[in-house]
Amino acid sequence: MVKIKKIALLTGGGDCQGLNAVIRAATRTAILQYGYEVIGYTFGYRGLYENDYISLALETVSGILHRGGTILFSSNKDNLFNFPIIENGKTVKKDVSDIAVENLKKENVDALIVIGGDGTLASALEFARKGVYVVGVPKTIDKDLMGTEQTFGFNSALGVATEALDRLHTTAESHHRIMILEVMGRGAGWIALESGIAGSADVILIPEIPYDINKIVDKVEMRQRLGKKFSIIVVAEGAKPKGGDVVVQKIVEDSPDPIRLGGIGHKLALDLEKLISEHEIRTTVLGHVQRGGNTSPYDRILSTRYGVEAVNLINQGKFGTMVSLQGDEITHVSLEEVMGRHKLVDPNSKLVAVARSIGISFGDM
Amino acid sequence: MVKIKKIALLTGGGDCQGLNAVIRAATRTAILQYGYEVIGYTFGYRGLYENDYISLALETVSGILHRGGTILFSSNKDNLFNFPIIENGKTVKKDVSDIAVENLKKENVDALIVIGGDGTLASALEFARKGVYVVGVPKTIDKDLMGTEQTFGFNSALGVATEALDRLHTTAESHHRIMILEVMGRGAGWIALESGIAGSADVILIPEIPYDINKIVDKVEMRQRLGKKFSIIVVAEGAKPKGGDVVVQKIVEDSPDPIRLGGIGHKLALDLEKLISEHEIRTTVLGHVQRGGNTSPYDRILSTRYGVEAVNLINQGKFGTMVSLQGDEITHVSLEEVMGRHKLVDPNSKLVAVARSIGISFGDM
Amino acid sequence: MVKIKKIALLTGGGDCQGLNAVIRAATRTAILQYGYEVIGYTFGYRGLYENDYISLALETVSGILHRGGTILFSSNKDNLFNFPIIENGKTVKKDVSDIAVENLKKENVDALIVIGGDGTLASALEFARKGVYVVGVPKTIDKDLMGTEQTFGFNSALGVATEALDRLHTTAESHHRIMILEVMGRGAGWIALESGIAGSADVILIPEIPYDINKIVDKVEMRQRLGKKFSIIVVAEGAKPKGGDVVVQKIVEDSPDPIRLGGIGHKLALDLEKLISEHEIRTTVLGHVQRGGNTSPYDRILSTRYGVEAVNLINQGKFGTMVSLQGDEITHVSLEEVMGRHKLVDPNSKLVAVARSIGISFGDM
Amino acid sequence: MVKIKKIALLTGGGDCQGLNAVIRAATRTAILQYGYEVIGYTFGYRGLYENDYISLALETVSGILHRGGTILFSSNKDNLFNFPIIENGKTVKKDVSDIAVENLKKENVDALIVIGGDGTLASALEFARKGVYVVGVPKTIDKDLMGTEQTFGFNSALGVATEALDRLHTTAESHHRIMILEVMGRGAGWIALESGIAGSADVILIPEIPYDINKIVDKVEMRQRLGKKFSIIVVAEGAKPKGGDVVVQKIVEDSPDPIRLGGIGHKLALDLEKLISEHEIRTTVLGHVQRGGNTSPYDRILSTRYGVEAVNLINQGKFGTMVSLQGDEITHVSLEEVMGRHKLVDPNSKLVAVARSIGISFGDM
Repeated sequence: MVKIKKIALLTGGGDCQGLNAVIRAATRTAILQYGYEVIGYTFGYRGLYENDYISLALETVSGILHRGGTILFSSNKDNLFNFPIIENGKTVKKDVSDIAVENLKKENVDALIVIGGDGTLASALEFARKGVYVVGVPKTIDKDLMGTEQTFGFNSALGVATEALDRLHTTAESHHRIMILEVMGRGAGWIALESGIAGSADVILIPEIPYDINKIVDKVEMRQRLGKKFSIIVVAEGAKPKGGDVVVQKIVEDSPDPIRLGGIGHKLALDLEKLISEHEIRTTVLGHVQRGGNTSPYDRILSTRYGVEAVNLINQGKFGTMVSLQGDEITHVSLEEVMGRHKLVDPNSKLVAVARSIGISFGDM
Repeated sequence: MVKIKKIALLTGGGDCQGLNAVIRAATRTAILQYGYEVIGYTFGYRGLYENDYISLALETVSGILHRGGTILFSSNKDNLFNFPIIENGKTVKKDVSDIAVENLKKENVDALIVIGGDGTLASALEFARKGVYVVGVPKTIDKDLMGTEQTFGFNSALGVATEALDRLHTTAESHHRIMILEVMGRGAGWIALESGIAGSADVILIPEIPYDINKIVDKVEMRQRLGKKFSIIVVAEGAKPKGGDVVVQKIVEDSPDPIRLGGIGHKLALDLEKLISEHEIRTTVLGHVQRGGNTSPYDRILSTRYGVEAVNLINQGKFGTMVSLQGDEITHVSLEEVMGRHKLVDPNSKLVAVARSIGISFGDM
Repeated sequence: MVKIKKIALLTGGGDCQGLNAVIRAATRTAILQYGYEVIGYTFGYRGLYENDYISLALETVSGILHRGGTILFSSNKDNLFNFPIIENGKTVKKDVSDIAVENLKKENVDALIVIGGDGTLASALEFARKGVYVVGVPKTIDKDLMGTEQTFGFNSALGVATEALDRLHTTAESHHRIMILEVMGRGAGWIALESGIAGSADVILIPEIPYDINKIVDKVEMRQRLGKKFSIIVVAEGAKPKGGDVVVQKIVEDSPDPIRLGGIGHKLALDLEKLISEHEIRTTVLGHVQRGGNTSPYDRILSTRYGVEAVNLINQGKFGTMVSLQGDEITHVSLEEVMGRHKLVDPNSKLVAVARSIGISFGDM
Repeated sequence: MVKIKKIALLTGGGDCQGLNAVIRAATRTAILQYGYEVIGYTFGYRGLYENDYISLALETVSGILHRGGTILFSSNKDNLFNFPIIENGKTVKKDVSDIAVENLKKENVDALIVIGGDGTLASALEFARKGVYVVGVPKTIDKDLMGTEQTFGFNSALGVATEALDRLHTTAESHHRIMILEVMGRGAGWIALESGIAGSADVILIPEIPYDINKIVDKVEMRQRLGKKFSIIVVAEGAKPKGGDVVVQKIVEDSPDPIRLGGIGHKLALDLEKLISEHEIRTTVLGHVQRGGNTSPYDRILSTRYGVEAVNLINQGKFGTMVSLQGDEITHVSLEEVMGRHKLVDPNSKLVAVARSIGISFGDM
């Protein structure tokens, strides 16, 4: 087994509460527990390619446990296996991963902790195949990664979305409105599903269960007959009608004053306005508010456990792995095993059944 | 002076945190302090016209102090001086205010407390001119009513907007983004101005100070030169470019899949994307989340003081008035004096100067 | 299998966020899914004894999902197997459980859902042994019940304690203070352990790991040498020194002005003041603030799942059970199996090791 | 008029949300608006005496707007006019203010901004009398400083206290408890008064209105007769019974295990327990949780306005002054005029009358 002396961290992909907590826990454990030297590459793999990094000492990670964002910065455009390079004045995409491997050797980095979502971890697996000692930490507010029961960031995003639903509730009730809240979730509807249950939504629309607009109208009208003259709809950005396509925000360039079009939340409002006349309908699109700000206590603990375990795995020589939550315990799985697969909401799962039991409609029946 | 035995309350216009706190304080004071009977008309003036009301007892107003919304419900379409009536199968607009006055007499209501914004209070003034004993309570999250230093609801909305800015900040910083937050404020920029100062915005765009897109770009680039590779922009929905018009959300009906277009927040993103290439730009539109949910402690106190004073004014026979905050003290002004005028942000005010002093740009210079 | 037509709910023991969410979910599922009639006994078993109950309809449970407390009320003094009865002017303790069983029969209640902690569930088991069809729902902010990975209320209490630590942190840091936060946990240190990790505590003291005051001083002094001139200590109310006893709040009756003495938090401050002179030490005792107020999204979802499953178990005829969280799934265990045992923090567990890895001291080494 | 080139800041006294916001605003204004050099003395006047300071640049004050605490640190023991010096092995108190004045000259500091409460500002006045160009900024969570309508920190503390009351409410209601919340306020009852109104307390006890324990019992019993089987009492730490003394936390040194005694909150519980038998009574002492953590939006704006104005006053040569809020406007008063006087709650004020109008008892009648 290799004798580890120096490790590196990097954070990739979109923002997510808990990144700093992982960085802090991993750094502290590496230094205090194992005496490793620790560096952090900046802007994800881009820093690895450009050999841009900062030294991570106890002081560097002080005071960051609760803070959103990442002190290592991050980027969405850092795939080194298909990286934009300017050659002869033109941008071409190239595999520059070997340069990254060289840089690791040059800096005597023995092992690399990669904190990111599916794209970032897929690259981690590629680097593992190239012989780099890699450990992954699953990050996504969407909770759609295989191999772990929970990803950090999800609980924080759930908190933001639920608070928004709480706020919309009082207005909906006193002004007899239909309130639509569009939350994140392109491929997986976890935030919509769980915030919908927590925030007392009447209708939850998720990508995994295509909806029929008439079923939503039925639900609103049934509530009205029961004296509930308002309805709350939470919709994942990737939700779509039966047989229809996902509504993506797009730009109308040829209009006199080209502007960006709204997504599913706005489409739904328009479609419902044609079918329901008694209510005013309002849409809120939460957007990036879900990804930043203070990390929830749950995510701070989960991130801390992940960060510590990632360093333990390095110490134990268990590379090519990803830390994982299984029940109460932090454990690990092989990156090979989980990459390329997404954990979607199962329409036949118990959690969906729970929502149906208490009367929530998914717009499908 | 008339001997008051019975009073009525109503809430009109859009939602606003603190409505329930006013209702509670007025009801408790009326009953405990003066022994009045209290009723509440539902859905604003509409209830007055249809004689729909509920009795307000101590128990009715128990547990509502902190809750957003209004237990009396509200409506945006309740102008009795221009009310939609169906006659011969057609909807025509009529002045039905005399029916409301009759209803007050029929129910032996001696005085009416009207809680609402400028539209609702303008009607209150009309009723006062018709001889109804009216006292107004100024309500608007926009803080744009003349005659009072503060309207309830504003502090709560400020809290929601500021928290959103805090959340956007961490992502902007770690992902080098330009984050745009669109907040409420069609005619007045108070929420944008104060949340911008509280939430550490770099650019604040308000209706009262038309902006030049190039000045915003200058600010972003100057920050970049100082090593700050991100910027936060808060924009009131009524903000507009110099010489330009307000961007209203509109519907493109003739597109194959007609959808609602975004407002100023989205327009700004598109315009900036053409001028700034280094940053990704993201827009969040807070919408109705600003109007509902738990009322802030400040607004609970202000609303309570207003509710108590409104009943005191009735007891003192001071009708045709609106309760008002002046400095530390609750006092009152004449409705006649303040109606029809809006309190806009003065571009030359000290508060705007404060923002400029600490380096905030208004996109104008 | 018995044909269920009517079920009853009761909530027992101390307060806990999520009780209303369980009541709501169980009631909605019973009515919407199975067509049961539902009643709720008030003040725990006391209502069962006195046959005091309310009817639970959809409207009764509307708007309560997020609210702390319990609409069924609760009591700490409701053990019907040892119940205080006044006989001949004297209070004697008697087993009055047969009267409760009679009442259930009289009201045609087919099955009973008991929501409570170990005391309340122990009684539930006794009733099950007497032939009552019982299903239990585990409730405790302390998370110390066997047979389930999570009890509702814990995540909400964790949130309150962590926010308090966040607040104490800024003052400790800028004023060079030692801040002690006493949190709930008489027998089990879960809240202290998890809030300590989430809230960046330097020392965590829990009942399961007796402390040595000198080790705490060592930790404070080591931090000082590293330039950290402040320390945060979180202490469970049941924490105790090695070889010492738990410090209970007690009353000094014979002093001129008898007053209640502080608990472990205050004792610790006094003991440390004698050993550390450079710092001022401040203690906050959170108390019941941890048990009430808005329920966290996590707890709302867990409580909803428990409430639905409890009714499913009744429908399936699985009595004498308690709903339980195992990994991602809601399942159930036999009450017989789990009663009388507590889930304490294992000093050798991975979670304690995680805390030690990032440098947290438990005052023991 | 002196030409200002360099200014210094210091923060003194107990912690308070908003200190960092003042530091940031003053530093940014001084640099961006006036081109001043800025330094900050550490640990209040102690830094001035020991000539310990840090340079304040734009970067130094970046990211601190919302954070509690003070990046300049603070101390409660920094009165240079009566400062503890060790002479011949003994600690003696001396006036060392001349050394501070010398240090200012040595560093070419032209003017000094002192941010603090009454003790700190009283020293500021002394320094002004010695010819130092001083501007004061009023800081206290207690809101008891004369000459300004509002001190920063109060609104944040109000938020913490009100949230605690909200949390206690749900438990009190569902468990029929009497809940006592002890909040800060030794001499002035502003936090208790305003959080009591905002948090729906039934009884508010403040130093300015001595209470009669029997009147509190009357209130609890009257509520009971109205079906409200719980009561919420908020008590300022300096509240006292009629004819009685303030209950201070003290240490019983001669008891076998000397421990600190509780304050008024605990005394009140004991006294009430003797008079009311139907309810369990619980006390929470919030303590320093009220002083730290995130600053409220209101306080961020107020602090920013104060910080900017302090520098404006220096620029205008208006020394010996304190910035002040009057109505909507930031202005200034003479330190001479306001020092040595406290702004207490006037028992005959309109705000107390408001509380009485809605049925709140002050325990006096």
